[in-house]
Amino acid sequence: MRALLLVTTTTACAAYIPPTRQPKATALHAVDADVLRQEFPALKQKSRGHDLVYFDSGATSQKPQSVLDATTKYYEEDNANVHRGAHDLAQRATDAYEGARDIVAKFINAFSRNEVVWTRGATEAINLVAHAWGDAYVSSGDEIVLSALEHHSNLVPWQLLSKRTGCTIKYAPLNDKQEQLDTDKLLELITPSTKVVALCHVSNVLGCVAPVQQVVEKVRKVAPEAIILLDACQSAPHKPLDVQALGVDFVAFSGHKMCGPTGIGVLWGLSKRLEEMRPWQGGGEMIGDVFLDDGVTTYAAPPARFEAGTPPIAEAVGLGAACEFLTEVGMDRIAAYEQQLGAKLYEGLIGFGDRIRIVGPPPSERGAALCAFTCDGVHSSDLAFFLDQEGVAVRAGHHCTQPLHKRLGADGGTVRASLALYNTEAEVEAFLAALDRVLADLEDDSDFVPLDL
Amino acid sequence: MRALLLVTTTTACAAYIPPTRQPKATALHAVDADVLRQEFPALKQKSRGHDLVYFDSGATSQKPQSVLDATTKYYEEDNANVHRGAHDLAQRATDAYEGARDIVAKFINAFSRNEVVWTRGATEAINLVAHAWGDAYVSSGDEIVLSALEHHSNLVPWQLLSKRTGCTIKYAPLNDKQEQLDTDKLLELITPSTKVVALCHVSNVLGCVAPVQQVVEKVRKVAPEAIILLDACQSAPHKPLDVQALGVDFVAFSGHKMCGPTGIGVLWGLSKRLEEMRPWQGGGEMIGDVFLDDGVTTYAAPPARFEAGTPPIAEAVGLGAACEFLTEVGMDRIAAYEQQLGAKLYEGLIGFGDRIRIVGPPPSERGAALCAFTCDGVHSSDLAFFLDQEGVAVRAGHHCTQPLHKRLGADGGTVRASLALYNTEAEVEAFLAALDRVLADLEDDSDFVPLDL
Repeated sequence: MRALLLVTTTTACAAYIPPTRQPKATALHAVDADVLRQEFPALKQKSRGHDLVYFDSGATSQKPQSVLDATTKYYEEDNANVHRGAHDLAQRATDAYEGARDIVAKFINAFSRNEVVWTRGATEAINLVAHAWGDAYVSSGDEIVLSALEHHSNLVPWQLLSKRTGCTIKYAPLNDKQEQLDTDKLLELITPSTKVVALCHVSNVLGCVAPVQQVVEKVRKVAPEAIILLDACQSAPHKPLDVQALGVDFVAFSGHKMCGPTGIGVLWGLSKRLEEMRPWQGGGEMIGDVFLDDGVTTYAAPPARFEAGTPPIAEAVGLGAACEFLTEVGMDRIAAYEQQLGAKLYEGLIGFGDRIRIVGPPPSERGAALCAFTCDGVHSSDLAFFLDQEGVAVRAGHHCTQPLHKRLGADGGTVRASLALYNTEAEVEAFLAALDRVLADLEDDSDFVPLDL
Repeated sequence: MRALLLVTTTTACAAYIPPTRQPKATALHAVDADVLRQEFPALKQKSRGHDLVYFDSGATSQKPQSVLDATTKYYEEDNANVHRGAHDLAQRATDAYEGARDIVAKFINAFSRNEVVWTRGATEAINLVAHAWGDAYVSSGDEIVLSALEHHSNLVPWQLLSKRTGCTIKYAPLNDKQEQLDTDKLLELITPSTKVVALCHVSNVLGCVAPVQQVVEKVRKVAPEAIILLDACQSAPHKPLDVQALGVDFVAFSGHKMCGPTGIGVLWGLSKRLEEMRPWQGGGEMIGDVFLDDGVTTYAAPPARFEAGTPPIAEAVGLGAACEFLTEVGMDRIAAYEQQLGAKLYEGLIGFGDRIRIVGPPPSERGAALCAFTCDGVHSSDLAFFLDQEGVAVRAGHHCTQPLHKRLGADGGTVRASLALYNTEAEVEAFLAALDRVLADLEDDSDFVPLDL
């Protein structure tokens, strides 16, 4: 099965689903997920005595066998430090590592491989821009535009920059229905004083999609020196990511959320932006010439300038394998399939009526198959706990978006079911059935009488 | 064999070598390495048609099967994001991840597990201190004491801090024989103006050991507010590392140099030092409460304060397995064995007479089994290239110590043979024989006539 699915081939989609069956969308996704999930060892396990239903991919995805194999092969055969060695293993390690950069560059349609900077994850990527661009070009009087629904990783780095520089942060609000960003108000915040606009491409709680094109048009018109950064953590695993088409300056994403290893992420940046950035972390690889008292230390060109120290080599190789896996399945097909899964999830939750309050827009306006919701009178953690007893892995809490949850009036958090390409319609049904049982049990249990009964 | 060697057991050393054989040192190391290296898949390969002689462990070490297995098991069974989830997998992932912190804390004899901060590697660890402690407590008029033999990773972060703050950097010189640090001159540089002393514990080129005890005594006496940081990259894999006994404030080291994965390292810091440090990178996990306009964002206690974003989870688990492996073999025994290996290497190179110039002190004054050397009239890269053709992996160049190489009059770099616990005396002999052949060939080859002939 794996040979059919995952061998490196440019005609992978055709090999994966016979062309004659492709026009029939329902057949397409039914076959996809059942076959595909066989490649993910972690999905084959029982949890609490039930077949595991892993609906926590928004936090981290599971990994296909090809990613594990690529990592193991690297360590068993090629492991050496990169760049600095001329020997056999060092050459192979460097080829594997830099080859992964080529794969990622192609995956996101970068203009150049030199625009791909390895980081530990999206969080470090955003911090890198906040320090290496922000400290150089943002000062008191300048404005940063964020939104009320950002992940802490796209809030706190800018708040720390504001403390260092005295710049002002403006937050675009939710719309009146509190379902997604208020685009008009967001665009109003962009003025000639704007130096940075940083937004999540897809919200990790609401699932809504940032109005990238409108933001790019407004920024280029009124604040041509400003940078636009997209946090693509929740889009990169779920739909084609074309940085050229997006037209922004920076895109940050994490490997572990897109079938890759932990410990690796990417900052993509336009070459001219990376070139104007200062060094941030100092060390090996990022230098040109180093002097003590008798000269001025110089720095390497991007991306090396921002990759101080021995990089996450095996992790880059693993992320390359993940991008190859996703490409082979086909990002367009993943997006279409997940759209259907997400709609089924949403409609299923709607079926609970007043017992469940979904936050965020209808599925047609979502960029990922996820739903966060509250249940009156039941704490999100309790609900997640009882779902876990049914073998269903969901996440409860604020999902690193405390300000959003305050605005939603959900200070106790939400329960989030977040799906990926390897989930099935049968799992959605299993999740809904488990939720129904849990809610029924809670309503029967005097310890968990909903507060408004 | 593996069950005997590597099962987790508190009596591992006894299981590994029968106690009756332990007093006989020659038998000890002869058995050790031949058995031990069977655990390292990468060492079993041919390189350029020869049995691989991997003498590049100073750049990165090979990984034992137990580290690969721990990483794979994590991904196949436990993979989930840590801390934020209450479900089955998230609990197991958190247990594995935080359990690794316990293992590392024990491995270095930390006062508390909360002193262990995960980073991408030693480079990031040093940058973290330079930013999070340096930016808060170092200013114009203050002095940083480094040495002329530091790795770029322990030079450039401080040079960047100096640019940001206007503080002064003083560099302790080599001694008259240029074999190692001049301890007297180093101690003279430490004055009441000193705010930071940052030194490599063991030099990655000279192999010499920093005079830690004398530095600690002097700093605590004349500059009690100053911090002392040790770059332990070249000591942690080779001898017992006891942070309590060292008496310094910070110790940084990398997982990949001590049988662990890439993408993970450790900053150990005294609790009081970590607590007085500002946040550096912002994001998930490092926050207390996050607000937009209506409150002041607060931060978590160490170590979480410095671990923004999804951490390198699988890598932490792998580093924990590496520390267990090293502990099971026994760090004292590794140190003793490597001391013998290093002496054999050094004596063998001495045997080449004037053809080879070893940099650094005699083996008794070295903290790791490594030798860097030059060969008159042959560029270090050429020598490494020809050794590679013989299956011998060594490194050529400045080894991220350009200033040291300038001072040594070795601008063209040195060739470095750096060994680890899995290397054997037979490999040392194979290396010396290969070097002899290469030098003979070069002397016969008109393209490589030594310049001074």
